[in-house]
Amino acid sequence: MSLDAVLDKLDSDLDDALERLMALLRLPSISTDPAYKEDCAKTADALVADLASIGFEATARPTPGHPMVVAHGGEGGPHLLFYGHYDVQPVDPLNLWDQPPFEPIIEERPEGKVIRGRGAADDKGQLMTFIEACRAWVAVNGALPCRITIFLEGEEESGSPSLVPFMKENAEELTCDLALICDTGLFDPETPAVTTMLRGLLGQEITITGPDRDLHSGSYGGAAMNPIRVLARVLASLHDETGRVTVPGFYDGVPEIDAQISEQWEGLGFDDDAFLGAVGLSEPAGESGRSVLEMLWSRPTCEINGISGGYEGDGFKTVLPSKASAKVSFRLVGTQDPIAIRESFQQMVTDMLPADCEVDFHDHGASPASVMSTDNPAFEQARQALSDEWPKEAAFIGAGGSIPVAGYFKSILGMDSMLIGFGKDDDLIHSPNEKYDLSSFHRGMRSWARVLERVSKGA
Amino acid sequence: MSLDAVLDKLDSDLDDALERLMALLRLPSISTDPAYKEDCAKTADALVADLASIGFEATARPTPGHPMVVAHGGEGGPHLLFYGHYDVQPVDPLNLWDQPPFEPIIEERPEGKVIRGRGAADDKGQLMTFIEACRAWVAVNGALPCRITIFLEGEEESGSPSLVPFMKENAEELTCDLALICDTGLFDPETPAVTTMLRGLLGQEITITGPDRDLHSGSYGGAAMNPIRVLARVLASLHDETGRVTVPGFYDGVPEIDAQISEQWEGLGFDDDAFLGAVGLSEPAGESGRSVLEMLWSRPTCEINGISGGYEGDGFKTVLPSKASAKVSFRLVGTQDPIAIRESFQQMVTDMLPADCEVDFHDHGASPASVMSTDNPAFEQARQALSDEWPKEAAFIGAGGSIPVAGYFKSILGMDSMLIGFGKDDDLIHSPNEKYDLSSFHRGMRSWARVLERVSKGA
Repeated sequence: MSLDAVLDKLDSDLDDALERLMALLRLPSISTDPAYKEDCAKTADALVADLASIGFEATARPTPGHPMVVAHGGEGGPHLLFYGHYDVQPVDPLNLWDQPPFEPIIEERPEGKVIRGRGAADDKGQLMTFIEACRAWVAVNGALPCRITIFLEGEEESGSPSLVPFMKENAEELTCDLALICDTGLFDPETPAVTTMLRGLLGQEITITGPDRDLHSGSYGGAAMNPIRVLARVLASLHDETGRVTVPGFYDGVPEIDAQISEQWEGLGFDDDAFLGAVGLSEPAGESGRSVLEMLWSRPTCEINGISGGYEGDGFKTVLPSKASAKVSFRLVGTQDPIAIRESFQQMVTDMLPADCEVDFHDHGASPASVMSTDNPAFEQARQALSDEWPKEAAFIGAGGSIPVAGYFKSILGMDSMLIGFGKDDDLIHSPNEKYDLSSFHRGMRSWARVLERVSKGA
Repeated sequence: MSLDAVLDKLDSDLDDALERLMALLRLPSISTDPAYKEDCAKTADALVADLASIGFEATARPTPGHPMVVAHGGEGGPHLLFYGHYDVQPVDPLNLWDQPPFEPIIEERPEGKVIRGRGAADDKGQLMTFIEACRAWVAVNGALPCRITIFLEGEEESGSPSLVPFMKENAEELTCDLALICDTGLFDPETPAVTTMLRGLLGQEITITGPDRDLHSGSYGGAAMNPIRVLARVLASLHDETGRVTVPGFYDGVPEIDAQISEQWEGLGFDDDAFLGAVGLSEPAGESGRSVLEMLWSRPTCEINGISGGYEGDGFKTVLPSKASAKVSFRLVGTQDPIAIRESFQQMVTDMLPADCEVDFHDHGASPASVMSTDNPAFEQARQALSDEWPKEAAFIGAGGSIPVAGYFKSILGMDSMLIGFGKDDDLIHSPNEKYDLSSFHRGMRSWARVLERVSKGA
C-alpha cells in the first residue's frame, strides 16, 4: 500500500472528481417535499452505479420513504462503515439564490474556488470526499485498504423516518467495528476536527385553533380569541429573561462540561466576535454566563424555525384567523430525554391555552445527544492523520448540529462513530447560495485517504 | 311621487336586479393585489355604464390607484351623497371555498335563498341595493326624488390610499347635505339599524431582522438571536392579563359610553352566547368586566392579522431565519389619535428589541373613530323608514368595523354620514364562502326607496 501514490492520484484526478460531484449536485434530491420523490430515487441509483464502478457490491434498498444505498467492498483489517446522506434541504426562498440551486457552478473568490449549489456542503460534497478516497485507493493499490461498507441515507433532512426500522432489519449487515460519518465541519479553515459531542434534536409543530373559521377583525375583534395572540404568548414564554428554556424538567440530564474539555475548548482560541460578526450579529443570544462555544456545543436550546398565520400576502387584510402554527425545535445535550421533554412541552402549551382554544401537535423527530468515548485508538489515529494533512493539529470538538444516526449506531448496532468533516461556518448550509470550498473537497478526500491508511493498519 | 309603485316595481324586477348583481360579482376586483388592477378598472367602467343607463351623469375618475366612480342625478330637495365600494377582499385560502369565488351562485338554504360569492355582502350587494332603489324610482316617477351624487371607491379593502387626496381635490363636487353609506349590517335578522358609532383603524406591519441571512439552527442555534422569538415577545406583550392593550397612552381619548346609550344597548337583548357560539367560541376574549357589545362597539382593540417567518412549508427545516414579520391592527374609539398611537406603538416595539435586531414599520392606514350626531332630523326620518319595512323597529347602534370614509366626510367635507346596511353576522365577509341573503338584497332596496322618500320630503 502506498499512501503517497494515492494522494498523488487524488491530486491529478481532481478535475474528474469535481465533474462527478457537479453531476450529483444537479439532481434535486429534496427529501422533505414529495414532489422530488423520483429525483431522490435517481440520486440513489446514480450513487449505486458510481460505487459499483469502483468495485463495490452496491444496491439501492427500498424503504417506505426514499431508498437507502448500501455497498460493500474490501477485505481484511477493521470493518469500517461510512455514513453520509444524499438528500438535501429545500431551496426557498428561491429569489435569494444567485443562480438556480441545482445548476451548480465553480466560483472564483478572493480566498479560493468554491462549489456553489444546494447540497454542495450538506452533504453531497462531503460524502464524495470519502468515495473519491476509495476510488483513488482502488486505482493505485488494486483494492481498498480494509473491509468497508458504505451506507447512504436519503431522508436525513426530513427527520429520517425510515432509518431506525432499516437499521434494525439489517442490523447484521450494517454492524461493523467503527462508523465514519462525514457531515460535520472543520474547527476553523486551518484546523481539522473529530467531533465527539453532538446535540440531539426534538422537532414539534404546533397549531392553535381559536374560532372555527376566519373572521373579520372589525366584526369580531375584541370579543373573539385570536390564535396568533395565543401562539405569540406561548412562544414568548419558552425562554426566561436569562435565556434559559422554561419547559419544566428541560435541564434534567444537562451536564456541566468537565474541566479538561473546558480547558481544551478555551485553548482553541475561538473568536466569538468573528463568528457572530460574519452573520451581522455582535452579542451572543443564549443563556447568560455561558461562552459562545458552550451555547453551540454543550448547552441545549429551543428555537422557533417557522411561524405562520392569518394574511401573509402583500397589503393588509383585517382578518382574525381561525388557526396559527409554529415549528419549534429543541437541541439536546448530555442525557436529556427527548420523549420526556416532548411530553413536558406539550403539557406546558396545553396548560397555557385560554378558553375556546385547541392545540394540535405534529411530531418531527426526537433524537438524544451523542457523546463519543474517545478511548477507541482509532480516534487518536484519525486525529494524527488529519494533523498530517492540515496546517494545524486536529482537535476533538463538539458540534451544535444534530446527527441522530450516530446515536442510533450506538444504541441499535453497538457501534462507536467517528465524525470527521470539512465544512466551514460560511458554507450557508440550509440557506440560499450554499457552497463548499474546493479546498475542503480536495483536502477532504486526501484526509480520508490518510485516515483509511492509519486506521486500517491500526497505528 | 308614489312610494308604493316604486316598491312594487322593485318586487317585480327582482330577478333582473339579481342578474345585474351576479354580473358585478363575476368581476374579480381585488384591490390589494396588483394582479387585479385591470379587473378593478373594468368594474368601475361597468358601474359607470349602469349608472348612465338610469340617467346619471357618470364617470370613472383616474387616481394613482384604482378609479373612483362619481355620478350625479336628480334635482331639488336635499342633496344626498351615496357612498359604497366596488373592490373586494382577497379570496385566500381558496381551497376553503365551495365554489370559485368569482362564479357567484344562488343557493337554497333552509332559512331562504342566499347569493354566494366574493363581494356579495361586502360591498357589491349592498351598494346595488341603493342603485336598484334609484333605478325603480326613475322608472316609476321619471326622475330621482332629489339631487343625488353617487361616489363609489375601489380601494376600501386596501387602505383607501387615494381617497383623501381625491376628496380634497374634488371637495366642491362631493360636498352635499348628508352622506349615506351602505357598508354596515342589520342589528339582527329582524331589526334594521342606523350605525352611529364606528371604530377607527390603524394598521401596522412590522418586520424584525436579526442575523443578516438565514442560518442553520444547529450551527448557530443558542448563540444567534432568532427574530421570530423577538417578534413573539413583542406581540405577546401587546395585551396585559386583563386583556387591556399595553401601548403607552393607548386609552387616551377612550370615553365610557353614557348611561342612555348603555341602557339602549342592554335593551337590544344581544345574545352573547349565540354570537360567539356561531363561530365555535364560548367566552368573550376582550377586556375583563366589559360586555360583548362594548368589546365590539365602544372599546378599542389590538389584533394580529397575520404572522410569517422561517420555514412554513410541509415537513421541517431547522432554519434560524433572518426576518420575521407581523401585520397588526388597532380598532380605535372616541377621540383616540391614530397618529399618536402609531408613534407610541413604534416606540414600544423599538424599545423591546434586543441587541443586533432591527425593526421596519410599514404603514397601512390610520383613521380615527366616527361618532355621529343624531341631531340631524334625517336620522329619525331614516329610522322611521326602516321601521316601516322590517318586522322590528330600527335601532341606533355601534359597529366594530371601521369605515374611515365617514370620518373623512366629516373632517374634509364637513358632512354628516348616515350608515345604513343590511349585512348579517353570518355573511362570512372577508372569509371563504361570503354570502348575502336574498332577503337583505330585496328588503335593502325597498328600505332605500323608503329612506329616499322620507328624507327627500324632509318628514
